[in-house]
Amino acid sequence: MSEGERRNMAPIERLIRELSRLPGVGERTATRLAFFIMRQPPEFARGLAGAIVEMKERTRLCSECMGLTEEDTCAICRDPRRDPETICVVEHPQDAMAIERTGAYRGRYHILHGAISPLDGIGPEELKVAELMRRLEGGRAREIIIATSANVEGEATALYLTRLIRPSGIKVTRLASGIPVGGSLEYVDASTISKAIEGRREF
Amino acid sequence: MSEGERRNMAPIERLIRELSRLPGVGERTATRLAFFIMRQPPEFARGLAGAIVEMKERTRLCSECMGLTEEDTCAICRDPRRDPETICVVEHPQDAMAIERTGAYRGRYHILHGAISPLDGIGPEELKVAELMRRLEGGRAREIIIATSANVEGEATALYLTRLIRPSGIKVTRLASGIPVGGSLEYVDASTISKAIEGRREF
Repeated sequence: MSEGERRNMAPIERLIRELSRLPGVGERTATRLAFFIMRQPPEFARGLAGAIVEMKERTRLCSECMGLTEEDTCAICRDPRRDPETICVVEHPQDAMAIERTGAYRGRYHILHGAISPLDGIGPEELKVAELMRRLEGGRAREIIIATSANVEGEATALYLTRLIRPSGIKVTRLASGIPVGGSLEYVDASTISKAIEGRREF
Repeated sequence: MSEGERRNMAPIERLIRELSRLPGVGERTATRLAFFIMRQPPEFARGLAGAIVEMKERTRLCSECMGLTEEDTCAICRDPRRDPETICVVEHPQDAMAIERTGAYRGRYHILHGAISPLDGIGPEELKVAELMRRLEGGRAREIIIATSANVEGEATALYLTRLIRPSGIKVTRLASGIPVGGSLEYVDASTISKAIEGRREF
């Protein structure tokens, strides 16, 4: 949108246009959101706008794990109680947040910011792979848990990282694939069932 | 959220919290939107935040039709080609926008900003009804098309306005209810079919 176009547009139309650029937000949803914001007290609009700008301006990448932080290193990397010998490698910051919500993991993270996807022109150079290798060289890591997605790109990334890291003697593991908890076999797809059989464990 | 809470929250978490307050946006969607905004260039965040604040600050109610405008009166009320003898009464500004998109209407509008809903404590005093009556007293209106929603609140509002306006001798009409264009009878609910039969027209 040019500056001229922007000036000629009514503020409500401009907001609808900006909101439509968000993923999963069509013009209809954008209109509903814009009119909702319109009906709220001015503090609502100021709070939301402030949060957007502040997030973008104040958030940067942790120099250690490449996660999001306001400081040089993030709260997890600064926490001495987190096991520095275990690093869980994920694609996105929100993946680390999902693992954190379980409370089941006490190690550190490394955020790749994507997965290898030749079709989209994303190779290891576009990801935070060099940062991971530098971290492993100087660090105390003894196990790398690869927690990339269970899709083609995630698997390709896992394979690539495994080959890269294994020569250094560090143990490389992968999250288990299988039947989701609460999942009825009837509704689980064939490849998940195959993975679950392949990865079956003794009682 | 208090100022203290706000300060203690990471910017990304604060944005997720603010986005979750939008209608139809749960924590999962808010997280996806926040990380999307994070990955965009800074201009994206500034454009969106600017549009939110600007919409709220610059938009006010048209002194004539109560629609949204940046001036004293809106573009439709200022347009001499729009028929001043016909006023279409709608609940919300977006309803007028929906009618405008059809290109089928060349009269003016009046925006009520809601519908009568005793259960929600919304009576005529909470709506722009007095403004409509003042407008009719001094104006040239000859027909009022009531285009409130086809639900209980919309019908109650339509009935109330009809009783209020009719003594002045101005013609009051209501949008036709019936089968939506392209709608297969099989999937249309019984009350819509009843309305369509009731409002049947000769070929």
